[in-house]
Amino acid sequence: MSQSIAIGMIGYKFMGKAHSNAYRQISQFFDLPLKPRLKTISGRDKPKVEKMAQRWGWENAVDDWRRIIDDPEIKIVDICSPNNTHHDIAIAAFEAGKIVACEKPMAMNGAEAERMAAAARKSGKINTVWFNYRRVPAIAFARQLIGEGRIGKVFHFRALYLQDWTLDPSVPLLWRMDKDVAGSGVTGDLHSHIVDLSNYLVGPIESVAGTSRIFVNERERPEGGKAKIEIEDASVFVCQYANGAIGHFEATRFANGRKNANTFEVNGEHGSVYFDLEDMSRLWYFDSREPKHVQGWKKISVWEEVHPYMKQWWVPGCAIGYEHTFGNQAADLINAVGQGKPMKPDFDDGLACQLVLDAVMEACAGDRWVPVKKPGSK
Amino acid sequence: MSQSIAIGMIGYKFMGKAHSNAYRQISQFFDLPLKPRLKTISGRDKPKVEKMAQRWGWENAVDDWRRIIDDPEIKIVDICSPNNTHHDIAIAAFEAGKIVACEKPMAMNGAEAERMAAAARKSGKINTVWFNYRRVPAIAFARQLIGEGRIGKVFHFRALYLQDWTLDPSVPLLWRMDKDVAGSGVTGDLHSHIVDLSNYLVGPIESVAGTSRIFVNERERPEGGKAKIEIEDASVFVCQYANGAIGHFEATRFANGRKNANTFEVNGEHGSVYFDLEDMSRLWYFDSREPKHVQGWKKISVWEEVHPYMKQWWVPGCAIGYEHTFGNQAADLINAVGQGKPMKPDFDDGLACQLVLDAVMEACAGDRWVPVKKPGSK
Amino acid sequence: MSQSIAIGMIGYKFMGKAHSNAYRQISQFFDLPLKPRLKTISGRDKPKVEKMAQRWGWENAVDDWRRIIDDPEIKIVDICSPNNTHHDIAIAAFEAGKIVACEKPMAMNGAEAERMAAAARKSGKINTVWFNYRRVPAIAFARQLIGEGRIGKVFHFRALYLQDWTLDPSVPLLWRMDKDVAGSGVTGDLHSHIVDLSNYLVGPIESVAGTSRIFVNERERPEGGKAKIEIEDASVFVCQYANGAIGHFEATRFANGRKNANTFEVNGEHGSVYFDLEDMSRLWYFDSREPKHVQGWKKISVWEEVHPYMKQWWVPGCAIGYEHTFGNQAADLINAVGQGKPMKPDFDDGLACQLVLDAVMEACAGDRWVPVKKPGSK
Amino acid sequence: MSQSIAIGMIGYKFMGKAHSNAYRQISQFFDLPLKPRLKTISGRDKPKVEKMAQRWGWENAVDDWRRIIDDPEIKIVDICSPNNTHHDIAIAAFEAGKIVACEKPMAMNGAEAERMAAAARKSGKINTVWFNYRRVPAIAFARQLIGEGRIGKVFHFRALYLQDWTLDPSVPLLWRMDKDVAGSGVTGDLHSHIVDLSNYLVGPIESVAGTSRIFVNERERPEGGKAKIEIEDASVFVCQYANGAIGHFEATRFANGRKNANTFEVNGEHGSVYFDLEDMSRLWYFDSREPKHVQGWKKISVWEEVHPYMKQWWVPGCAIGYEHTFGNQAADLINAVGQGKPMKPDFDDGLACQLVLDAVMEACAGDRWVPVKKPGSK
Repeated sequence: MSQSIAIGMIGYKFMGKAHSNAYRQISQFFDLPLKPRLKTISGRDKPKVEKMAQRWGWENAVDDWRRIIDDPEIKIVDICSPNNTHHDIAIAAFEAGKIVACEKPMAMNGAEAERMAAAARKSGKINTVWFNYRRVPAIAFARQLIGEGRIGKVFHFRALYLQDWTLDPSVPLLWRMDKDVAGSGVTGDLHSHIVDLSNYLVGPIESVAGTSRIFVNERERPEGGKAKIEIEDASVFVCQYANGAIGHFEATRFANGRKNANTFEVNGEHGSVYFDLEDMSRLWYFDSREPKHVQGWKKISVWEEVHPYMKQWWVPGCAIGYEHTFGNQAADLINAVGQGKPMKPDFDDGLACQLVLDAVMEACAGDRWVPVKKPGSK
Repeated sequence: MSQSIAIGMIGYKFMGKAHSNAYRQISQFFDLPLKPRLKTISGRDKPKVEKMAQRWGWENAVDDWRRIIDDPEIKIVDICSPNNTHHDIAIAAFEAGKIVACEKPMAMNGAEAERMAAAARKSGKINTVWFNYRRVPAIAFARQLIGEGRIGKVFHFRALYLQDWTLDPSVPLLWRMDKDVAGSGVTGDLHSHIVDLSNYLVGPIESVAGTSRIFVNERERPEGGKAKIEIEDASVFVCQYANGAIGHFEATRFANGRKNANTFEVNGEHGSVYFDLEDMSRLWYFDSREPKHVQGWKKISVWEEVHPYMKQWWVPGCAIGYEHTFGNQAADLINAVGQGKPMKPDFDDGLACQLVLDAVMEACAGDRWVPVKKPGSK
Repeated sequence: MSQSIAIGMIGYKFMGKAHSNAYRQISQFFDLPLKPRLKTISGRDKPKVEKMAQRWGWENAVDDWRRIIDDPEIKIVDICSPNNTHHDIAIAAFEAGKIVACEKPMAMNGAEAERMAAAARKSGKINTVWFNYRRVPAIAFARQLIGEGRIGKVFHFRALYLQDWTLDPSVPLLWRMDKDVAGSGVTGDLHSHIVDLSNYLVGPIESVAGTSRIFVNERERPEGGKAKIEIEDASVFVCQYANGAIGHFEATRFANGRKNANTFEVNGEHGSVYFDLEDMSRLWYFDSREPKHVQGWKKISVWEEVHPYMKQWWVPGCAIGYEHTFGNQAADLINAVGQGKPMKPDFDDGLACQLVLDAVMEACAGDRWVPVKKPGSK
Repeated sequence: MSQSIAIGMIGYKFMGKAHSNAYRQISQFFDLPLKPRLKTISGRDKPKVEKMAQRWGWENAVDDWRRIIDDPEIKIVDICSPNNTHHDIAIAAFEAGKIVACEKPMAMNGAEAERMAAAARKSGKINTVWFNYRRVPAIAFARQLIGEGRIGKVFHFRALYLQDWTLDPSVPLLWRMDKDVAGSGVTGDLHSHIVDLSNYLVGPIESVAGTSRIFVNERERPEGGKAKIEIEDASVFVCQYANGAIGHFEATRFANGRKNANTFEVNGEHGSVYFDLEDMSRLWYFDSREPKHVQGWKKISVWEEVHPYMKQWWVPGCAIGYEHTFGNQAADLINAVGQGKPMKPDFDDGLACQLVLDAVMEACAGDRWVPVKKPGSK
């Protein structure tokens, strides 16, 4: 690992911390072809970004993201800034020939996502969207089981993403509740994750119907004064899959007692799997081809060396946590770069997700079934 | 308990067994004003119904339900026969001045249910529908907690009723899969239960959208030959409540590994409750008004003397089972009769449920949002 | 089932109720060769036993158990009275040629148990001890898995029986806390169950060491006045098995929050099983011969038709409860009688259990390792 | 955090990795008074330790631990080498005026531990033993609840530490199975953890009785040839506490299916707590002073900002893992050093633990109850 690869990161808050930590850790835990070099971090508040840079070991702190785009030494542009900035940064980065890693939701809407994915394709550069939950070992393992034919034809998918942190009306307006910045509420923030997992595990959704709610209509601005809330606090939808399965999804920040309950279940002809992010080391698996009397839901602790990513970390029985999902994705990215191979999920996956989210937003707005657009269609 | 009350039961299969067992047990476990007398049981197959009568202690076995209606000594008519018989029997029973206890779903559709509920009201007789899950102690307890104001304003309801017993295509046609007899598939069989619980715990649903599937299109008839399947194997829907909450429901017989997973969760401003029939002694309760550091989901084993019905059975730590939900309802019915008080759920509750089911069927058929009709509307 | 078999029962309290219920139910649920006839019930308090008889359908109520022994029509003597009465009744019953079913613990001590087992052997009559937990379907199923060689050589057994009902010092003196009547505290009441399960699942214990505690030294007598408590509230012990395994056991009525936590785990070379009576429909099973990546603890819901006893009751997904363990044992007894075959657990099993309990009491009293006596040794 | 503090670490294998990772992460996540400087790492295999140093950012790699002792710039000596080296290194380090952080078990036996604790006291330097599980947030939180009086007088403690990684006889001899290097088997390796937690949560143990087993008597040496196994594969013991409570402990590497099942339960007069390291984000809490009908075991996800250590890491719902327990302890150590305050657990705690382990070894060897020596006694 004599060579390093320079990274420029735009955004320095929660996700900036998660990504910085990932880049710092992976050189120790993975055998990487290149050592991530934390070259430049960008943010609009110079003092804050400088403090972040110092603490996390970024060489430079800048307040204009274009300085990252313009730096020829920087090979990877990592976009962690709010949703409404992704489009311009990503396109500029692709045009500058950068490898791009973009936080989710990739875009404010499908139209943006179409342009971003087109730019990615045109550039020919490796690109990825931080749907980090694909790198939860238990979820990667679910995909593996499905790939082994252990579920068979799928009948049902059901996914929840339940939180409760905005239930209290005294929680002030944050950027995730600001329509201009976030684009949507739980749709972009939470449904994006479970829709991506649905794409990953089951396949494309054809049409959706649902409903959404704003339970608290007004919140304090941090700077004082009231703000009208225009993004949805909660949203539920049902869907029809191309492969004949049916599903339902719920995302909310008003499920009292649920903190990060990203759960899903796939039911197929030969078995089922169940996952809950609040117990992320486990995958539950039911195999209906076992002898009847010993059938049951098996609680598989996904921390053996044979499980995805786990050989890199500690030993069986020693759990990893939330942060390691970013490490896993960062390591996969560096490996892809070193080997010159494509990386998944990419901007086309981000687009596929966004088109479902657009349909969900439209369905909820109009109380009707909405078909999911095909990429590239009008 | 010197006096007895004569019961006539129509139907003698699975539910006939469940009800017979209930009537036999409750005189020992409850202090009832009247002793249930198992007078007459009716069924179309005379030898089978006679065998049933002998085994379970029914005094008479008949093959024409009208003999029960015509017997002046019989005060309670219990309807356990297939769905397509409920309407005629119930109306005849009310017209004959009987107390009526009818299995769910109450009717084949809303129109039947309207007439049945009208007959019930006109008769002035005590009546009930066997939504036995209201008498699971943990569910009655959930209702109690809600009644104590522990949940507050409700934001979300989500309910599943997952089974897998028809997933195997070699399972033959049974009456529950025959459209003429059952009326619908999982909608009448399973959604009816969770919609009733939703009515019981949250309140009325205003509109629904959903989709359903027939996964196996053809099955063997027990008597030989193939039957085309016309009832839905699975159905999912989202809904909007009159009180502003949103919800979703799923019922299926194709959820591999789920045997009787009737689960629900209510999320409100002060807390939440969660239940799963596969672990029926438990209610999970989250109280967000506790001090932050000791908040959590409490696994309440609903088997203390202070919990609904449990004082009647064994002692704390000694679980009751599926059958006792019928005992609880039967005992409540006998007590209501003895005290001359109304019984819940009644035929109006059965109608309310049926009108939601009608809307679900229509919504799934037409891929559109459908408002739930008000009782008595056209 | 044209013929019946007359039963005489001595004792009418909690266990009297459990047994009566069992005898009443099994004729409906099992295909028995003989119909249990509830002929005579005996108890010292005539009005109470008469009330019990009326409610539960016993033909006669008597206040002297010898009238049951003397009744030639009575074939089965069921002993549910307090521990200090078992010895005399059982021996009298065997001498009168009765089939005997005796509640646990079988005796006050090993010496009594030796005489009782000898009387049983001498009589040649079918006999059983109500270690009803062997008839929890999940436990019978655990035994089946072990019998199928799925665990292999056993390394560990650990069992708890945790309750909390006497933790409150204001709980008055009941017979189970009275040394003269109960013989011991949790040792006879709770350890007896888990020691029997250990004998059933693992094999004989060779030696034990442990310690016990009386946490509340004095309690109110129901009739007024204070009683000094001389039975142990809690007891823990470790043990060495004849087969080389090691184990530990705990029984207590002071485990706050545990109501009926009869749990055990067997660890062997090929796998493990885990059970908790508070979730009695489940057996957890780990199989280390599966492919590494899909190994896990399987939560088997023991309610399929292929599982012990379950075909007799309802359908998969419909749980049975505490009371059905007595039904299962009663049905097995009636079947054994009808077929003239021996019944397990029998008085020799009761003796084997009692000899371990004696060793535990001695070990706790003397703070030393105590070998378990062989049956028939001095 | 302008100033740094130089660390010298002895040992570079699994624990070396865990500690290195901790030192690297905490400067980002905690506001520390001093920045840990990874100055020198020592190990007997020069090429391996050099590779480790390069990967983890240690400035120097040496093959003689005395070079760390002799380096005046190094303030903290961290001992991660095998058990039989702790004594000499720690005493040398204290004599050189170092702060010492020593892996567990602190010593090969009580005699060593006495000398080490005396050296620590004499030096007056801050010292700690890596009983890292005290820094699992859920365990620190358990201690907090006990400190708040929520459990009251303790009746019971029961702890398991179950693993299965040596069950397979083909697992070769590792240093943890070599009596000369490890001193004991599961006693030093696993019981040390749960005995320390017992000391932390309940208080001193007065006497113990138990038994142990070697299930596999011979293993392959990695370098070839057979080795006779002289350390115990499994050990169970019961104990009596100074405060009147009773307990039992089990440690094994032969519990098939249990990977890192470090579990404990404390039962007291007002409530109970339960923990399982395999689900380390949770503490289960039962409060018997709540109204009876809402009592239950509360599953507290210990990841709120108000919980120990959690404010430093991510946000509620985002779990930390095994490695963070070392980060928490390392951060506490650096804070203690910066503030010149004592650190717990210290060498006296290590000694207290070791004296219990000595008693356990003696009790198992002699099949008798053994009192735990007081520190400083002969």
